[in-house]
Order: sequence, then C-alpha cells, then structure tokens
Amino acid sequence: MLPLDEFSLIRAWTERRQPKEWLSAAGVRIGIGDDAAAVEAAPDKDWLFAVDTMVEEVHFRDETMTDEDVGYKALAANVSDIAAMGGVPLHALVSVSIPPSWTPERMKRLFDGLYDCAGRYGVAVVGGDTTSAPRHLVVSVTLVGVVEQGRAIRRSGASPGQIVFVTGPVGLSAGGLHGMLGSASAAETGIPRAKKTPPPPKSLVQAHRRPAPSVKAGRLLLEQGFASSLNDVSDGLASEAWEIAEASGVSIVLKEPRLPLAGELASYARHCGVDPLEWMLYGGEDYVLLGTADKSSEAELRALFRSEGLPLFVIGETEAGDAGVWLDSEGGKRKPLDKRGYNHFARG
Amino acid sequence: MLPLDEFSLIRAWTERRQPKEWLSAAGVRIGIGDDAAAVEAAPDKDWLFAVDTMVEEVHFRDETMTDEDVGYKALAANVSDIAAMGGVPLHALVSVSIPPSWTPERMKRLFDGLYDCAGRYGVAVVGGDTTSAPRHLVVSVTLVGVVEQGRAIRRSGASPGQIVFVTGPVGLSAGGLHGMLGSASAAETGIPRAKKTPPPPKSLVQAHRRPAPSVKAGRLLLEQGFASSLNDVSDGLASEAWEIAEASGVSIVLKEPRLPLAGELASYARHCGVDPLEWMLYGGEDYVLLGTADKSSEAELRALFRSEGLPLFVIGETEAGDAGVWLDSEGGKRKPLDKRGYNHFARG
Repeated sequence: MLPLDEFSLIRAWTERRQPKEWLSAAGVRIGIGDDAAAVEAAPDKDWLFAVDTMVEEVHFRDETMTDEDVGYKALAANVSDIAAMGGVPLHALVSVSIPPSWTPERMKRLFDGLYDCAGRYGVAVVGGDTTSAPRHLVVSVTLVGVVEQGRAIRRSGASPGQIVFVTGPVGLSAGGLHGMLGSASAAETGIPRAKKTPPPPKSLVQAHRRPAPSVKAGRLLLEQGFASSLNDVSDGLASEAWEIAEASGVSIVLKEPRLPLAGELASYARHCGVDPLEWMLYGGEDYVLLGTADKSSEAELRALFRSEGLPLFVIGETEAGDAGVWLDSEGGKRKPLDKRGYNHFARG
Repeated sequence: MLPLDEFSLIRAWTERRQPKEWLSAAGVRIGIGDDAAAVEAAPDKDWLFAVDTMVEEVHFRDETMTDEDVGYKALAANVSDIAAMGGVPLHALVSVSIPPSWTPERMKRLFDGLYDCAGRYGVAVVGGDTTSAPRHLVVSVTLVGVVEQGRAIRRSGASPGQIVFVTGPVGLSAGGLHGMLGSASAAETGIPRAKKTPPPPKSLVQAHRRPAPSVKAGRLLLEQGFASSLNDVSDGLASEAWEIAEASGVSIVLKEPRLPLAGELASYARHCGVDPLEWMLYGGEDYVLLGTADKSSEAELRALFRSEGLPLFVIGETEAGDAGVWLDSEGGKRKPLDKRGYNHFARG
C-alpha cells in the first residue's frame, strides 16, 4: 500500500493523458480504474487484462508465506480480478525480479506454487521476464481473461435501492496474518508478550496463503445477469465498498449483524482478545466478490447460489445520496466507515 | 541480469509444466521463450504479449537516467519485443512498486515519459498496479500487440546458408552508459581517474535513455515475408545471435568489418581509449532487430529498406553445424563469441 491515497495518486499520474475518443477507437472498453481493463478482441468477445504485484516485506515475509505460497497467491490475486469482471482467466505472464536471498531452489518452489494455481484455474503461463534485484523480491503477474462482448461487470453500475452481497466470509486472511505475525514475534524475541498471540488455526493461515478466487460465482452472476456492480475484496470490505460507492455515485449501508463472520474467526478473535470486526472490514485479501443487485432478484439470486453450492450473504443495501459507506450496528446506530484499506506491515 | 545463465534457469522453472497439447488447445501459438507470446485472438489475428521489467540499481540509477527516461524506456523495451515478432503494439499495463525515495512528483515524471513513448507508438495505457516497496523502484510493463494470424516471426526459423542482418548500429547505448558511469564516478569521488572518462556525446546518452524500437522495420519484414527469424537486441548482439542459433539449430558467423559502427561511437571509443567492439557485441539495449533471410532475397531486402529510408546492414551468415556464434575478423581469423549478455552495473 502507499502512504497516501493510492487512487488519487494514480489518477493524478494517468488521468486525461489519452483522449477518451482515441482510447475508444483503439478498442478500449474499460481502461484504468476497475479490477481489470476490457478491450475488444473479436465480434463476440472482449479480453480482460489485470496485473497484480507482490513485493517482499510489503505483501509477504518469510514468516507469513512459504515460497510456494508467494507464487500461488501472486496468480490467485489476478484470477480474482478477472472473476470480479465476470470473466474467465486464460493466459498469464510472470515477471520476477530476484534478490540474492532468493536462490534458484527458492524460485523453483515459487513457480511450483504458481503453476499449482494455474492448473487449478486452467491458466496457461505464456511468458514472463526475469531480472535480478538488489534486495527484495518482486513478482508481477499479468493475467488475460475473456468475457462476452460488452458484458464485463463494472464497479459503476450500482443504483439506489439495491441489495449489497458478498460471496463468502471476510476477515479470515487478516486474522491468519495477525496470528502469524504475533506468534513469530514472540518466537523471535523469546520473550512472551504481555498478552501472547495464540497460534492461528490452520484454516486462517490457509485463507491468507492460498486464497480461492470466486471465478464460478463471477461467471454465475454474469451469465444470469444479476450483478449491477462487482468488485473483489483485495483491500478490505470497506475499501471495496467505497470503490463501488464512488464509481456508482451511491451510498452503501452495511448491516453489522449480517456480515459473514466465520466460526473459526470468531473463536480465534476471542482467544486473541480482539474484535474481529476490524479484520472483517479492513483486512483485505479475502478475494471474495462484493456486488450489488436488484432487490427484486434477491430470492432468485439466493436460490441460484444455493443450488450451485456456493455461499452468498446479503449484507446491506444501496441508498441515494453522496458516495459513502456506512455501518448499521445491531442496535441500529449508523456510523461512517473509513476508506482506508489494509496495511500489511504498518511501518512507523 | 542474473548471475547464472538466465535462460537455463527459466527453463528449469517453467519447462514441461503444462502439456503442449493443452497449451495449444488453449490457443497458445508461441509460449515462453521468444520475445513475446502469441495467442489466437480471432480468425484473422493473433495477439502478442510481452513483459519487461526495469529495476533500480540494476537497469538504471539516478546518474544514468532521468525519471522521465525510466518511464519512456520501460515501455520502449516492450515495444521492441512486439516489433521483434513483426507485430503492432496496442495496449499497455503498468505496474510500479515505489520506494520512499520516489516521491509522487518523481512518479509523475516517470509517467510523463511513459505516456510520451505511448503517444509515439500509438499505445493505449489501459491498466496497472501500484504498490509500495522497501527500497528500489521496480517498473514492470506488459504490452499487448497484434499480428496477422500464425505469422509472428520466431527466433527458430533460421536455416543454414542465409544472411544475417541488423536494422541499425549497435553499441551506442553501452557507449553512452559507459560514459555516464565513468563521468559520474569521477565527479562523485572528486578524484579524477588515472585515465579519466570523457563525458559522452549527447547522441550516445540519448541512445541509452530514449531507444527507438524498430516497429516499422519489423512490420516491413513481416509484410514482405523476408525474415526467417527475428530478435531484438536487448541483451547484446552476441547474446541475441546465440538465441537465434540455439532456437534454429544453426551456426551464425558474424563478419567484424561489416558490423555497423556509428561514427560518433568510434570517435568516443577512441577518446576513451577502448575498443568499441566490446560495446557492439555485448552492450545491450540498442533495440534494433537482428534477423536472418534467404540469400536470394538480399538485393530486394536492401532495396526495400533503402526505399523506406530505413537502415539495414548485412553482417554475416548462417552455416550448418552445432548451434554457436562466431566472429570472422578482418584478417579472416574466426573466433567463438560468448553467450554472455550485458551486466549493467557489475557487482563484485
């Protein structure tokens, strides 16, 4: 993450650089600012392009991820971006810049993990680039996907009076990370903390290391035409809701009692003596999908997901008004949610 | 560059991971191992994908490149990869991981340079990713190009008895870099070297900072069907010739007197008291095209390039035999050329 608001910086660097008409003539349907770009490929299909970068010491460390996990997750994050457009992932390019601490054997393991993910999602690895680096490893994966022409699901399609849904529980990845960092610090220093972080359950560690992008859910939403907007939860529920709210010009109200809290997360949070809500709202990298749909289609949507054996939680609704995100607590009290995303290893 | 042989490492990490038949069924025409990958996009066209990464302290430093140059060159290197397949560049994705030393103002300048290059080659910037980094800047650009279906020019098409050509002079970028590093060291330390490096002429600095990929030459070669193999000179003439020799299973013999030595490079090398041949053979980043063609088409090829106002130098020929690269000196003495590429800032 960047210290300042990443999105306003990117806007400042890239906005109004190339005329919209020119981009459109060049076949660009969706440019910078969504989970993936969409470009006309053939009369019946658009191609989707996503790129995601993982940086050592920023997104992972030796104590949080195995070498295989780094490769797996670098591709999985991109698969999730394609899923968030309703697309099918196809081809990947992998760029690595390698510091001396990453031996050829470690890199082999990284690629083991990456190809494991590629096999699982049917992705062909078609190219890449390899360079050295002075200190930290950087893995940058570009993923090409495909979607029916003109039908990629954007962030900007939500309108007031719709339901807000999510395709799985959130906060698990952040809970797992919390546990791994806490346990590691205690082990490293040899001094148990005043309140020692208990070791995290395997399911939370797995959620952090081996996310399972919602490709099937994304396709279902696109094919059945249910989702008016869609985003993947990479930076945290609040931050992703903000993106939809701003892109669509709506207010999003989440209902705290409806947020999907997994049993193992609740119990681990209790062990740690922390409120899991922080992880659920601001912990990223769950790679479930957050979207909106017409209220009239709620029952059908629920039935569809149930029949496919996929989870779906309706967690709030959209309202007219300034772009913003709110949380209604159990007691009915409404408070605004910050736009901030998740900072993996907060520095200073 | 990596300390060991980059290509054998990449092979070890990626080879035989995915069955050829499966890749082919997934529409992959050219996978890992050429300048760009090629994938079926529509009945009449293939799409090309290339990715190139520039790492601070490995590919550039403050004293060798302005911030604008870094952005320009990161895209230009990819444009050259597409040119080397005979393709047309279309869409780019830009991933940056940003250390504290790169302020938003510096990043703005980097994007100024990148969009300058995009404008020059008609490339639409459609997406990207932005993360922070602990120390060094990494810019990774993915470029999508297009080419007539099944016609991308590979490295593997050379056969014995063909001519070897290059589409411009080589060694200029390395000469410019040598000059900038030499001058900077002298300036930094305050102690003039025993043999002080004179400041490099502007044309060599420009060659290093603002390379001009041979898109027009690549298209001409594809449209007229002249090139049996093609590669861009990113790692150095010897290294690129080795790639063609190995991929095609031929021996390549370069003729020293025919190598295109630019006047300003010859005169600067004399000033520095060095032999420019090292720069010409092993200095990379000239981004001209190196290729092979039938002997019978030599006159036609020369006439075509002359009529288009483009440079073309016939610098050697292919022979039957084990894959290898040789240099015939003026006196007719033949010596083998190393496979090594260029190490920007050799360490230890």
